[in-house]
Amino acid sequence: MKSLNQLDRRDFIKSSAIFTSSTLGLTSVSALDTNTSFMVDERENIIGPRQGLSPHIGTLLSMMSWMRSTILYPVDKMTPEQLDYIHDEKSNSIGSMLLHLAATERFYQIHTFEGRKWGDWSEPDKKRFDVAMRLGDEAREKIKGNNLDYYLNTLKEVRENTIKEFKKRDDKWLFSVDEAWPWGPTNNYCKWFHVCEHESNHNGQIKWIKGRLPGAKSGND
Amino acid sequence: MKSLNQLDRRDFIKSSAIFTSSTLGLTSVSALDTNTSFMVDERENIIGPRQGLSPHIGTLLSMMSWMRSTILYPVDKMTPEQLDYIHDEKSNSIGSMLLHLAATERFYQIHTFEGRKWGDWSEPDKKRFDVAMRLGDEAREKIKGNNLDYYLNTLKEVRENTIKEFKKRDDKWLFSVDEAWPWGPTNNYCKWFHVCEHESNHNGQIKWIKGRLPGAKSGND
Repeated sequence: MKSLNQLDRRDFIKSSAIFTSSTLGLTSVSALDTNTSFMVDERENIIGPRQGLSPHIGTLLSMMSWMRSTILYPVDKMTPEQLDYIHDEKSNSIGSMLLHLAATERFYQIHTFEGRKWGDWSEPDKKRFDVAMRLGDEAREKIKGNNLDYYLNTLKEVRENTIKEFKKRDDKWLFSVDEAWPWGPTNNYCKWFHVCEHESNHNGQIKWIKGRLPGAKSGND
Repeated sequence: MKSLNQLDRRDFIKSSAIFTSSTLGLTSVSALDTNTSFMVDERENIIGPRQGLSPHIGTLLSMMSWMRSTILYPVDKMTPEQLDYIHDEKSNSIGSMLLHLAATERFYQIHTFEGRKWGDWSEPDKKRFDVAMRLGDEAREKIKGNNLDYYLNTLKEVRENTIKEFKKRDDKWLFSVDEAWPWGPTNNYCKWFHVCEHESNHNGQIKWIKGRLPGAKSGND
């Protein structure tokens, strides 16, 4: 009952008023300033503001959380052999794609939270995530033999840092524009939306490969 | 210069004040009520409110537009033969996946805009989109021989209707919850976020298959 637990965390509620409601997990928080009240519903299929986060950052995080639970569903209970399976010479393993998602999120953290140029990563971050970020031959060679928990724990650790840093920031940060980004002028919301939709991109590939694992019955992708 | 053209459409600007800014395409609109001013920047890599739409619907549409341009990039200039290519007996063609995305958006329109139960589609909608929605054997058999414009025009026609209907609605509609949805209580924002991320899911598969088209050099997915 995350929504009810959250409701007890009054210190997180930027609230100008509390609504009573028949729906669990509802309270009222400032939307964009303290003059605007807004409904917060922490249930997983409710995209919208979240307690303890500025309204648009909370809405983004609600999408990222929904997306994450969606992509983890297909890999549930996968064995190391299934996570390591390489479908053809160009194909990435499911495990390497999971680590690739953690790597992507970590590098966007360093870039958008620390203001570092893309690629300006510490040695420990490079050592941990560079191969997964690039995928391809080196990833096929080096990312193998891990169980599912290794990938899930890495994703969880990185996501917890994202949430911790999101809580320190406001919507002005989310909407601030990087005029020099290679795509053209791009705001932090767009960079983090990409981190989110990028999980779906690889989930499509993970499900495609899952349907072709040795002995697979599922899969019509 | 879409952003500048939009700036002339004052009738669309729900504005309480105009900011001067060194960034093109900025103006100020109501975010959640007329007491809250908010920056609007219509450039493609800026996720955020859009003129003529309520703030959160506009932000959602900015993601959907960004996602759409992202998924159309890999299929640029594809021939009917490439769009029809079937990689293996379980695989969907790239063309069928493009039509599947239009079908998905159309069915969510009927469901969320007309309040119809999932599957309660008119005969013309069924005839046009049911096979693409289901994918699989029947789609492999029936969806073929079309050029890229057929798919692009269908996607464009459906999207234009989404935008037309979004303009009639407000953020209260976006955040309204369907307590009976099979996923569990789900708001319209979550349903439409799914329509958006679902394009990325299939884009991952489209790029995977593109990398394996006869004679393909690209692709490391």
